[in-house]
Amino acid sequence: ENVLHVRDADTQDKILQALQLQFGKQYPCSKIYGDGSAVPRILKFLKSIDLQEPLQKKFCFPPVKENISQDIDHILETQSALAVDLGGTNLRVAIVSMKGEIVKKYTQLNPKTYEDRIELILQMCVEAASEAVNLNCRILGVGISTGGRVNPREGVVLHSTKLIQEWNSVDLRTPISDALHLPVWVDNDGNCAALAERKFGHGKGVENFVTLITGTGIGGGIIHQNELIHGSSFCAAELGHIVVALDGPECLCGSHGCIEAYASGIALQREAKKLHDADLLLVGGMSVKKEETVTAAHLIQAAKLGNPKADNIVRTAGTALGLGVVNILHTINPSLVILSGVLASHYVSIVKDVIRQRALFSAQMVDVVVSDLTDPALLGAASMVLDYTTRRIY
Amino acid sequence: ENVLHVRDADTQDKILQALQLQFGKQYPCSKIYGDGSAVPRILKFLKSIDLQEPLQKKFCFPPVKENISQDIDHILETQSALAVDLGGTNLRVAIVSMKGEIVKKYTQLNPKTYEDRIELILQMCVEAASEAVNLNCRILGVGISTGGRVNPREGVVLHSTKLIQEWNSVDLRTPISDALHLPVWVDNDGNCAALAERKFGHGKGVENFVTLITGTGIGGGIIHQNELIHGSSFCAAELGHIVVALDGPECLCGSHGCIEAYASGIALQREAKKLHDADLLLVGGMSVKKEETVTAAHLIQAAKLGNPKADNIVRTAGTALGLGVVNILHTINPSLVILSGVLASHYVSIVKDVIRQRALFSAQMVDVVVSDLTDPALLGAASMVLDYTTRRIY
Repeated sequence: ENVLHVRDADTQDKILQALQLQFGKQYPCSKIYGDGSAVPRILKFLKSIDLQEPLQKKFCFPPVKENISQDIDHILETQSALAVDLGGTNLRVAIVSMKGEIVKKYTQLNPKTYEDRIELILQMCVEAASEAVNLNCRILGVGISTGGRVNPREGVVLHSTKLIQEWNSVDLRTPISDALHLPVWVDNDGNCAALAERKFGHGKGVENFVTLITGTGIGGGIIHQNELIHGSSFCAAELGHIVVALDGPECLCGSHGCIEAYASGIALQREAKKLHDADLLLVGGMSVKKEETVTAAHLIQAAKLGNPKADNIVRTAGTALGLGVVNILHTINPSLVILSGVLASHYVSIVKDVIRQRALFSAQMVDVVVSDLTDPALLGAASMVLDYTTRRIY
Repeated sequence: ENVLHVRDADTQDKILQALQLQFGKQYPCSKIYGDGSAVPRILKFLKSIDLQEPLQKKFCFPPVKENISQDIDHILETQSALAVDLGGTNLRVAIVSMKGEIVKKYTQLNPKTYEDRIELILQMCVEAASEAVNLNCRILGVGISTGGRVNPREGVVLHSTKLIQEWNSVDLRTPISDALHLPVWVDNDGNCAALAERKFGHGKGVENFVTLITGTGIGGGIIHQNELIHGSSFCAAELGHIVVALDGPECLCGSHGCIEAYASGIALQREAKKLHDADLLLVGGMSVKKEETVTAAHLIQAAKLGNPKADNIVRTAGTALGLGVVNILHTINPSLVILSGVLASHYVSIVKDVIRQRALFSAQMVDVVVSDLTDPALLGAASMVLDYTTRRIY
């Protein structure tokens, strides 16, 4: 890859020299970086400014780390990524800047078939990429977060749960890269959440940490020595399927006693429904309308309003999650556990209690925090692009 | 460190030149390699041989890998390590050759106090080191396997269970290194077992694998990308304390429902005693003498002879161990799980069944095997010395 690094592009001379090097074919241009309108755009910019002053004062570089490379085009643009998030319900595409700012976001329902889904991804990506030009965002590549097990080296979804149908042995990289002429990275949603924490969240600068996402299901990602653990068959960090009961409630994966079967949104909703059907859910201060679906939120509300049965269910769920964390501590001993997802804040104190009660003394030196990222999957998908395309060491 | 590498010490000239370089102070000698009798010994050897023939044909190099360094002294000796194994009952010291052969082994009861223990370790090491000279073994360093959590960078035992008393915050490296003038490596027994498998056992050439040792307790070690995972507070791979039951039998660690509380030797012995006290253990074909202690072996014997209660206990133990393995698969997804310890062969088929029933499809691509190493702790302790002192890249 031939990327021209301009460390100190603070004078017109240096920029002109860099242009000459890059576009005068002294170095072959890289497909990724050398789009055709860069030269006129930069020349226009150079003509528009006061040549007496150093450029640096007029124009702010995107706030990237000292050791991150700068190619000449980025002087005028914000380095950005197209991030795609393929969830059970929604398909989302966003333009994400180097800062982690979501510049623009598009949401559609995730189609049920492989063909419709690929077509919609391409269509949304093309639309976002063309809009990016107007927004002065330079798209460096496409990062995709998806449910299921992923081979990130090949950009292939190996296997997915029923939540995303027709989503096994799917090569995502080839069609998208071919259509957009951009490099494509793919990883699963748990791993993307961990990458998001590493770049933009509590995981910044932390060598060993774990992310647990409690949403509809439970996912996770593990950072070991600053890198994701993918495992020998890309099945590492399937933390939702850590088992904490020899028997125990059935899980969507076919096993039972998984922490997902206790503490996920689906699990809490199932318990809430059971209580509601037996007329045991509602307490003073809450109501469920006739046509309203009973959800995990109702259960948590009931627990907070003093329903002892609801409270017991939430406690058991938190305990199961906590034992899952204890198992993670005794396996890879991270220094930080980040809980994310809507349920995280309800679980965090129980999880801490369980660690105090059930973890080995040496493993208790761990922080447990709630994530403050709003879109971990999108941010993590973007971070694969932003980190890789701007890395200095190849 | 200044180690002279003689890649092709096959002629007298090359050896003499190497000697001149190393001992003529053109390079400062390393403390480790440059013992005082090396020069006379090598010169004596050179005088004893027929100078017409190339040396290589007369003398066999120890069979080390192509990429492992050779210092000049090793032409006459076998590169070896002093290995120390500090268990709950015994203190063992061995001379271990590069091939993994235990050339000589010394065993004593592990003293109950810190002072006695350190004194005995030193005494046994000094004796072994002096015997090594007669055995033509060059001791490159001391490797120590010990129960408890260890900081291997500092060579310090941080914490130990009650099995080894007075064994917290103990600097093992300084006194032993000072007394023997040898480099000292320390790690815990689970990690040492994994290192032994990597160098001499089923783990040879396997990038990601896990060792589970089922003995009196349950320990473990994790190799990820060919290296041990130690964790942020050196508490990784405490696999015996993976929890598989919200409640469940009490564990020595203070928690309950740990796989150690189900499947360790102590756990099986406890259940065997209970059965025997209720007169439910013995079946036709077995007996326990009055003064004999009831052990895990009796329980397994009873199970094999058709005692359904004993069989049930062994099955539950194996299931708990299997779920522990499933949790490991869903966390770090190794390609190989090695079971070791006396109980391993009794558990292996149940563990495989549990994986088939309870692990995610993508995680099932894992081999589960029984170790064939006899002294994993000693071999692992030796491998720290042998790998580190003969490494070519620093």
